[in-house]
Amino acid sequence: MSDQFKRLALIGIGLIGSSIARGAREFGLVEEIAVQSRRAETVKTAERLKLGDSYTTSAADAVVDADLVIVAVPVGASGDIAEEIGPALKPGAIVSDVGSVKESVIRQMQPHLPKNVHFVPAHPVAGTEYSGPEAGFAELFRGRWTILTPPEGTDPKAVERVRAFWTGLGARVDTMAADHHDMVLAITSHVPHLIAYNIVSTAAHLEEVTESEVMKFAAGGFRDFTRIAASDPTMWRDVFLNNKQAVLEMLGRFTEDLTALQRAIRFGDGDALFELFTRTRAIRRGIIDAGQETAAPDFGRQHESGKE
Amino acid sequence: MSDQFKRLALIGIGLIGSSIARGAREFGLVEEIAVQSRRAETVKTAERLKLGDSYTTSAADAVVDADLVIVAVPVGASGDIAEEIGPALKPGAIVSDVGSVKESVIRQMQPHLPKNVHFVPAHPVAGTEYSGPEAGFAELFRGRWTILTPPEGTDPKAVERVRAFWTGLGARVDTMAADHHDMVLAITSHVPHLIAYNIVSTAAHLEEVTESEVMKFAAGGFRDFTRIAASDPTMWRDVFLNNKQAVLEMLGRFTEDLTALQRAIRFGDGDALFELFTRTRAIRRGIIDAGQETAAPDFGRQHESGKE
Repeated sequence: MSDQFKRLALIGIGLIGSSIARGAREFGLVEEIAVQSRRAETVKTAERLKLGDSYTTSAADAVVDADLVIVAVPVGASGDIAEEIGPALKPGAIVSDVGSVKESVIRQMQPHLPKNVHFVPAHPVAGTEYSGPEAGFAELFRGRWTILTPPEGTDPKAVERVRAFWTGLGARVDTMAADHHDMVLAITSHVPHLIAYNIVSTAAHLEEVTESEVMKFAAGGFRDFTRIAASDPTMWRDVFLNNKQAVLEMLGRFTEDLTALQRAIRFGDGDALFELFTRTRAIRRGIIDAGQETAAPDFGRQHESGKE
Repeated sequence: MSDQFKRLALIGIGLIGSSIARGAREFGLVEEIAVQSRRAETVKTAERLKLGDSYTTSAADAVVDADLVIVAVPVGASGDIAEEIGPALKPGAIVSDVGSVKESVIRQMQPHLPKNVHFVPAHPVAGTEYSGPEAGFAELFRGRWTILTPPEGTDPKAVERVRAFWTGLGARVDTMAADHHDMVLAITSHVPHLIAYNIVSTAAHLEEVTESEVMKFAAGGFRDFTRIAASDPTMWRDVFLNNKQAVLEMLGRFTEDLTALQRAIRFGDGDALFELFTRTRAIRRGIIDAGQETAAPDFGRQHESGKE
């Protein structure tokens, strides 16, 4: 049996689903793609963009005869989808997902999946601040990490095939326990999004500073937060509702540290500030060295001349 | 008298000073540029980069015969510089600066400046996460705002000449009271930097998540914070020490709002989260419409292919 999947079913065709569709086609990872969205309009858009070979609003219909099913919906909808597709899955099929939270997705989906399919939860740590099928592109996952969190007892061959699929999309692949994933992502992704959303909201509700001033003078740092805070509201609501414990834990640490920093400012402790501001530089160098960021000076936004 | 300045003295030749030097030369805004840095090595670098016409480590020497003096040093050093250059300033000269805090700079500098010079404090809201004379470029200020905060009684002609200089560098120019500037920048720049520094530091000190994991999986949002937290430590220490009141005020608002958001997560209030995450999108559209940001999907970092 070849490593290539014959039929891929994509449940949900937003930014991530449509990027998988484009990549899987472009890099020859599957023979056929069944595209599903619960919204008829989105299905039409996907069809116009030629993202698949068949199109439907029914998740159960989409998975018939698929040997790889990838659920790419907001994590709060995972359980319902699993319940719907469970009875329609082909024996031996591999079911995966792309959710930003893994313990909750496993808890929601696993009870509905028949014993004769393989469940390999996955999370590609990639995205943009845009959403919807038109926002996707084949190279989205190139060089980024996809984390697999197979529950204990998962067939290693199924894990290997999912790994090969993501490698085919250009991703690097790591494996870890679901609870550890949720803790790592709470600090590297979920809490950063929360504080970005929060400061944008704070800025919008001040009496002393007008909204128009906030927009005009955003180049001093604020605009980078607004980019993060432009991410899909449904997806992020579900992330926070479904990774509550880890997010609250990491948020507690963040607030504790911020309070110490606030105290250093209040008492004019310049040495403490300088020392902290110096240490944080090393982390950025590490991220660039890890190939997860470019070194180009982005505040200048030179790369997009003519657009400003 | 032509609007062009004959002799510009740049006190400090880091990212901002060197960008002014390059722009002033390239766009023909001055005839001569005197470059000063207190560090001999930096003076040498500036000379190698041909940023000026004369070079010195003495601020007093640099300002002799200058009709425009721009102090481009960390705001904590403004007072000492003013004291040093005060007696050497040419009568009728215009003294300006680029500090991110304006009330403190005025308080520090004004007492040392002779009555026969014009003091026009300025703040170009532009920068990159890099520092030093090599990081500067002539186009840094293009399309960005420069805020002038002339103290009451300042000669309008002097203000007009400084405005023309910044317009010549490609900037848009606004005028406001120093205390209002400090409040606006506290929310659009200072607090964003503080929380970026803070979360990077929090992430570096966790027991549950290794530093290497933080770096590997940074593409989920965290890396954007590290870029901001890579900014110059001396500059930012001075900003927080010198805009204490406004920063603490805005930080108080931020924390209050974050606590409410934390509570919404704890109690699973999805509607509150969704509503807030939706409202923040409008602000980003406003910033793009205001010409202070590009609409390109930056999380994908497509514009720098080949570097990753």
